[in-house]
Amino acid sequence: MIELYELCGANPAHLFSPFCWRVRMALVHKGLSFRSNPTCFTDKELIAFSGQGKVPVIRDGDTVVYDSLAIFAYLDSQYPEQPLLGDAVASARAKAIDALCTSVLRGGLLKMVLLRVLQASDPKDHAYFRSTREAFFSDTLENVDNPEQGQALLEAAWPVLAAVLKTQPYFDGDEPAGADYLVFGYFMWAYTLGIAPWQDNAPVNDWFNRLLNIYEAQRGTVVRTA
Amino acid sequence: MIELYELCGANPAHLFSPFCWRVRMALVHKGLSFRSNPTCFTDKELIAFSGQGKVPVIRDGDTVVYDSLAIFAYLDSQYPEQPLLGDAVASARAKAIDALCTSVLRGGLLKMVLLRVLQASDPKDHAYFRSTREAFFSDTLENVDNPEQGQALLEAAWPVLAAVLKTQPYFDGDEPAGADYLVFGYFMWAYTLGIAPWQDNAPVNDWFNRLLNIYEAQRGTVVRTA
Repeated sequence: MIELYELCGANPAHLFSPFCWRVRMALVHKGLSFRSNPTCFTDKELIAFSGQGKVPVIRDGDTVVYDSLAIFAYLDSQYPEQPLLGDAVASARAKAIDALCTSVLRGGLLKMVLLRVLQASDPKDHAYFRSTREAFFSDTLENVDNPEQGQALLEAAWPVLAAVLKTQPYFDGDEPAGADYLVFGYFMWAYTLGIAPWQDNAPVNDWFNRLLNIYEAQRGTVVRTA
Repeated sequence: MIELYELCGANPAHLFSPFCWRVRMALVHKGLSFRSNPTCFTDKELIAFSGQGKVPVIRDGDTVVYDSLAIFAYLDSQYPEQPLLGDAVASARAKAIDALCTSVLRGGLLKMVLLRVLQASDPKDHAYFRSTREAFFSDTLENVDNPEQGQALLEAAWPVLAAVLKTQPYFDGDEPAGADYLVFGYFMWAYTLGIAPWQDNAPVNDWFNRLLNIYEAQRGTVVRTA
């Protein structure tokens, strides 16, 4: 049984980390049993065995792996059925798709979810979340968070993703695999925090719903911010 | 010997079609001998054997293939060494990278090259080029062409591509393959027509120069608009 350490909010069943969602989808894709270990931002002692301080982390027997892409590579090496990344070229392409989509999506989504993350997180995490993010942005959460501006940035992002999804159902072709989950993580960041700003862009919305349905059919309804 | 029908300008050695450059790079990648058949826009009779009117077209013995992606797939099926697209998932990812990059590059580049294509093309092609493109755009070439606006659009595109190329040397990883050539074609569209608007973005410019150097080392200096 693989142990998955993944970020949770005040509700331990409320999972909203884009990088943890990647790993959750990867485990479901491979059909691997896993046990969730909900981890708050400040539960550093829970994952101290990994030698670093960020989720996602998996422990599989004696092996500990952190970082979503490293976990994908580990799962492919250990459980080669249903590849996530595939061979060297396929893997490089998945990382390229991730980088291209991150580049067009992340900034806009961040402005829409930042305060939602704060509100969803456990009260014991609030000071930590605020201080680390404000140091990173050199600005207050309230100044960076700007849903209207985020939505405007994302209006330019959807056609870029739709250029792919109007010609093939998934980034990985006829069936989803690693590249889809890398991108889907960002969507779950927004979705689990209560928004779906892509919902008026049909090819993107349809792709998201196909993946969400695959997940929920196996693991049940996702907990979202009301 | 593969026959390659590819777009040329008034100078038959001046090749500036992005889609023809994809195929030329693919043939060089595979190490396949080919003979160039420079084809003006209006040399429709030269490629009538293909049953349609656009280059690139290849004839390989009795087999005729048109459309750059179809040619890539054909070359992989017939000459599997040095894959361009690879298996189904790798191929879907290459197409996704193409669609993502096309979406962020094409509009800006078009505004920078449109009149340059007219000026480079054979005089016998001018009326055809103008009438087909003006019908497509529902506007004059002179109104669509706008290099300053194109450059401004592209300033938003380079960081998107750089997000990939700052972490891996090629879209395909450590060595170039099909996804790189799909994107590189657009760059050769601009470069052969005398501009290199990416030259101040180091990761993108370095990637372009690596590919150009690989090509020129084998096939000699590329003919460009002065």
